[in-house]
Amino acid sequence: MRYQLYYWPSVQGRGEFVRLALEQAGAEYDDVARGTEGRVPGMMQLLEGDAIEHPPFAPPFLKAGDLLIGQTANILLYLGEHHRLAPRAEAGRLWAHQLVLTIADLVVEVHDTHHPISSALYYEQQKREAKRRTEDFLRHRVAKFLGYFEHVLQKNGGQYLVGRRLTYVDLSVFQNIEGLRYAFPQHMQRFERKIPGLVALHDRVAQRPRIKAYLASDRRIPFNQWGIYRFYKELDA
Amino acid sequence: MRYQLYYWPSVQGRGEFVRLALEQAGAEYDDVARGTEGRVPGMMQLLEGDAIEHPPFAPPFLKAGDLLIGQTANILLYLGEHHRLAPRAEAGRLWAHQLVLTIADLVVEVHDTHHPISSALYYEQQKREAKRRTEDFLRHRVAKFLGYFEHVLQKNGGQYLVGRRLTYVDLSVFQNIEGLRYAFPQHMQRFERKIPGLVALHDRVAQRPRIKAYLASDRRIPFNQWGIYRFYKELDA
Repeated sequence: MRYQLYYWPSVQGRGEFVRLALEQAGAEYDDVARGTEGRVPGMMQLLEGDAIEHPPFAPPFLKAGDLLIGQTANILLYLGEHHRLAPRAEAGRLWAHQLVLTIADLVVEVHDTHHPISSALYYEQQKREAKRRTEDFLRHRVAKFLGYFEHVLQKNGGQYLVGRRLTYVDLSVFQNIEGLRYAFPQHMQRFERKIPGLVALHDRVAQRPRIKAYLASDRRIPFNQWGIYRFYKELDA
Repeated sequence: MRYQLYYWPSVQGRGEFVRLALEQAGAEYDDVARGTEGRVPGMMQLLEGDAIEHPPFAPPFLKAGDLLIGQTANILLYLGEHHRLAPRAEAGRLWAHQLVLTIADLVVEVHDTHHPISSALYYEQQKREAKRRTEDFLRHRVAKFLGYFEHVLQKNGGQYLVGRRLTYVDLSVFQNIEGLRYAFPQHMQRFERKIPGLVALHDRVAQRPRIKAYLASDRRIPFNQWGIYRFYKELDA
């Protein structure tokens, strides 16, 4: 089955967690809005149209045959089950999902470092608040989240976050480290010695043949100033 | 099987979504930290201890036999499957979960109306930012989220949000309307005529025998100024 991924065409954003899973699965998919014709209108129709049985609230969403699945973690739950990117047994399946929901919480906090007041306003319109929020984020939250995942990784033997093979949890932690490095290079340079296991995991993921090929392809959108992970020099101070 | 729910003993918070599901399921459970001995230390031990195979990042979490399940939406996924609080077939199961993840996004935004900068600071230390964020929240976000759920409800016939019987999605929307009414009474009084279906759903849920008995019991913690839904007169203006 060929999938259709619907997400904004110019950013990694939340769609990237899905792209990484699809790439690692070797799945066939269209990144719909990125097609040569730029079909963002088609995506908006699905969001706002009356014809959809299960209308999603926001991108990303994935068309999988008759299913239209929204919410990043929910899409990963589906892909995990269908492409062996998560344990099959209930305990492992729930545990992997729990970890990805925790990553989703972190992603919200990353977004809110530059948009603490409103997504409808520009960064410049909430810059003062962004500075305050980012200060707290870098001081407390990064260490709490990544320290937690480092602990989980070490408890599990250090190779994978869940079980004995690669899961979408490893891919998602990889993506978070990529993003945090882009957004807060100075902070991460200092901080990373506290999470040696995660850094090594990141490097191993980057070397997986399918991920390596994907990262080198033009399917991987470069980080930029419109996504969730953004670099503002003054916030990384 | 008797469950153990671990959550802060003095607030509804995210734990309330789990409590409502357990109550509607007629499940036996201990609200551990609320026991006469107030076992918050026991909860913290589970969070920080090395003995736990799958340590949760934060409350709530649910002990279900050998499983220790964290993340509110993940707990509901589990309870939905085991207590017929969600469809069994894949399409309906994913759809219900997708909707609850969207509710979880709303809950984060509600929390951030009074804590837009940091959970580690008091409201009074971020009051100015809270006013700005709440203004945006009430102007744009409440209408977007609740308008979406009203649309989903009407598309599904108006009785239930998912399928043809009560699910944890209905319970969770009920709880959100309860909470928003507590936090923003003036705003909600004006706004509610735009979501007649959800208001009627709320009232039907409140009259379900098990929910009605629960709401009248002392197991239901009253809303207060320490939870996610808080009333600050100046924010509701």
